[in-house]
Amino acid sequence: MGTLISNTLAILPSGETHTAGRHDIYVDGTDIVGIDEAPRGFVADQTIDGSRRLTIPGLVNAHTHTYMSMMRNVADDLSFADWLFGTIEPLEDRLEPEDAYWASLLSQVEMIHSGTTCFNDMQMHIGQTTRAVVESGMRAVICRGLVGGEYDLNERRIREALEERDAFADCDRLSFRLGPHAPYSCGPDYLRGVADLAQREGMGIHIHIAESQTESDNLWEQHHCTPVEYVRDAGIFEVPTIAAHCIRVNESDRSILAEHGVSVVTNPASNMKLGNGFAPVPELVAAGINVCLGTDGAASNNAQNMFREMSLLALVHKGTHDTPQCISAEETLAMATRNAAKALELPTGAIEVGKKADLVLLDLDAPSLMPLNNPVAALAYSANGSEVTDVIIDGRTVLRNRELLTIDEERVRHEIARICQRLGLA
Amino acid sequence: MGTLISNTLAILPSGETHTAGRHDIYVDGTDIVGIDEAPRGFVADQTIDGSRRLTIPGLVNAHTHTYMSMMRNVADDLSFADWLFGTIEPLEDRLEPEDAYWASLLSQVEMIHSGTTCFNDMQMHIGQTTRAVVESGMRAVICRGLVGGEYDLNERRIREALEERDAFADCDRLSFRLGPHAPYSCGPDYLRGVADLAQREGMGIHIHIAESQTESDNLWEQHHCTPVEYVRDAGIFEVPTIAAHCIRVNESDRSILAEHGVSVVTNPASNMKLGNGFAPVPELVAAGINVCLGTDGAASNNAQNMFREMSLLALVHKGTHDTPQCISAEETLAMATRNAAKALELPTGAIEVGKKADLVLLDLDAPSLMPLNNPVAALAYSANGSEVTDVIIDGRTVLRNRELLTIDEERVRHEIARICQRLGLA
Repeated sequence: MGTLISNTLAILPSGETHTAGRHDIYVDGTDIVGIDEAPRGFVADQTIDGSRRLTIPGLVNAHTHTYMSMMRNVADDLSFADWLFGTIEPLEDRLEPEDAYWASLLSQVEMIHSGTTCFNDMQMHIGQTTRAVVESGMRAVICRGLVGGEYDLNERRIREALEERDAFADCDRLSFRLGPHAPYSCGPDYLRGVADLAQREGMGIHIHIAESQTESDNLWEQHHCTPVEYVRDAGIFEVPTIAAHCIRVNESDRSILAEHGVSVVTNPASNMKLGNGFAPVPELVAAGINVCLGTDGAASNNAQNMFREMSLLALVHKGTHDTPQCISAEETLAMATRNAAKALELPTGAIEVGKKADLVLLDLDAPSLMPLNNPVAALAYSANGSEVTDVIIDGRTVLRNRELLTIDEERVRHEIARICQRLGLA
Repeated sequence: MGTLISNTLAILPSGETHTAGRHDIYVDGTDIVGIDEAPRGFVADQTIDGSRRLTIPGLVNAHTHTYMSMMRNVADDLSFADWLFGTIEPLEDRLEPEDAYWASLLSQVEMIHSGTTCFNDMQMHIGQTTRAVVESGMRAVICRGLVGGEYDLNERRIREALEERDAFADCDRLSFRLGPHAPYSCGPDYLRGVADLAQREGMGIHIHIAESQTESDNLWEQHHCTPVEYVRDAGIFEVPTIAAHCIRVNESDRSILAEHGVSVVTNPASNMKLGNGFAPVPELVAAGINVCLGTDGAASNNAQNMFREMSLLALVHKGTHDTPQCISAEETLAMATRNAAKALELPTGAIEVGKKADLVLLDLDAPSLMPLNNPVAALAYSANGSEVTDVIIDGRTVLRNRELLTIDEERVRHEIARICQRLGLA
């Protein structure tokens, strides 16, 4: 299937930054096969007129829990403990596996409409997010959340994680990591077991680290170390690791993360919303760490919109550091695209020949993009996601003129309403 | 002209907070004339099916400069001085009055699409924003920006401000205030003259106060007072005053603002973007000050979307104060609606019989609003403005099924492109 996006204003990588210019983009099968020049024998089965479109690499949401959209706005303006233990966890316990499927699909509807083509998910209901990804056409990294004290290879969760990976081996858009939940929910022995397993299976790790002051305080009291040291000492960083949050990380922690090539995902909305503060993103960048951007789940965000997250990322550190030069629009776009692709070890996140065709088209006639004095700045500071008209993932058009081709939105609404009724929600 | 919005989920005021419930809303002429009960003799010329809509009071953008959308994304990630003196002011000098008309209209297109029905504008090109408001159907408070050292009643700017007020006296949607720009651009004598004039003419004041540390430092050096004290000493607070920013205000300043009934407009995006930090909103609220929300101009925001601003407001102070209970969704909605209406002395900002019919309808089928576990939280944390389908201002439908009825968007695009070409912009 050949697709030509003709004469579009496209944002292409250019060294460490990006440049915007008019281009023809050629897609064949799942890949970008040409820019401005069609490869020999290329046949366009469809041509998209890009003249009034800004084409960007699909956004990569590097940390979320898609099933949590079921808990959107259930518990706001509460303390972390009241939020998690008083409301979210009791509700989670009542979710059926099938509920997680519909909730994940709902998150994916929201993500596709707002220009996200790939996400990194930590989930609990085996086979559900995966099934939703097969249907939606998105690209995803799936991590079964793992918690425990003593390590046991035959533990249900670990068994499930490996079984799920094997069951979906034929879907190229899916890859799998192990998801030991956090220092406060995984004992040292358990983390060591998971690290060994990851080594043997050649799998990466996705973990929460240093999300709250309480986590740091408790760990110091019990183990006399920081969350980063705790995770390092268990051997986790010996395999490719993506660490979400990393708010309470001191200079020494940042050196450890940099030294081990750990990628950090910052989640500004969720971190502020739960009263956990701001990750030291400028300092993480200065330490040479690969920083990416994520929304976290809709129970703590409460959206799955990477444009909103980009604007938060580009703004909040200018506020905390009292300087307008802190975290530029360029850095923001990189954290939402190629840095995340690097962290997830996926050939996406840039409009380049040989990369996967994960492309998002925005309406240049949208008032928020007008006048388009600086396209990269417009993405970080002006767009809100509503400008997205077309989304191509893995070479396949999944959104055309704002219409979702892969998911029956009416059915999703119906099922979400049914689940709400059963759970006594909205 | 009678309009019935039937069976809609509406957010109604309820003491200090809001309640959401199913209602019929009756509009006649410019006013809300009934809720659930039609007034005697009411005839519906149009009925809007509200069953899949969330109806909210139109949002009020309490501080902006609509003509500045022309400078959107022209200068980002720069120091305040490079931004203002190096780029924005030289560009402003090249704007023709007619350019300001089209730029203001562009801002109004963006505002209407994202649910704003009223704005408080500080502007420089007399007769242009006003003309655009007459056309768009929005409600606005217009303040001619005033700067100077010595006061002279016959000065051009002051003359123009009064002439403009008189020229547009027949448009009920327009009201006028005096806009002495800021402590750093207005001498004490000038401010005193403007305060006297406002007293005589029965006009309110709209002013920037304490936006940056530099402003405070310079004022301390020159006059040994804070910006708030400087403005108070000139007599400005003797008339109803709206003060934008108020970032660098200490406890004594906050007492002064409270004592004089000054309303404060916070502009989180602009304040962060220019590296000016965060206004002490929780402390302003604790002092009993009426706090409202604004976007500021698109040169420093870089959007005119009050939903994005609401999410920033609801999030950032939780971050700076390390507590999730800081600035609730309820407070956020109030700051974007009724607090602003109070500050601007306008009968809008709430769905209540007797108030102006400034109403915004959101699509309950939008994925970001699903499931709608808490409608007020959804407005503050989940919506991005793209959910807006219909907007009624002063009883007149200006947006229907996302289509603008009052403004020719194609013409606006054409004119903006023409101006960009002349100015050598995008």
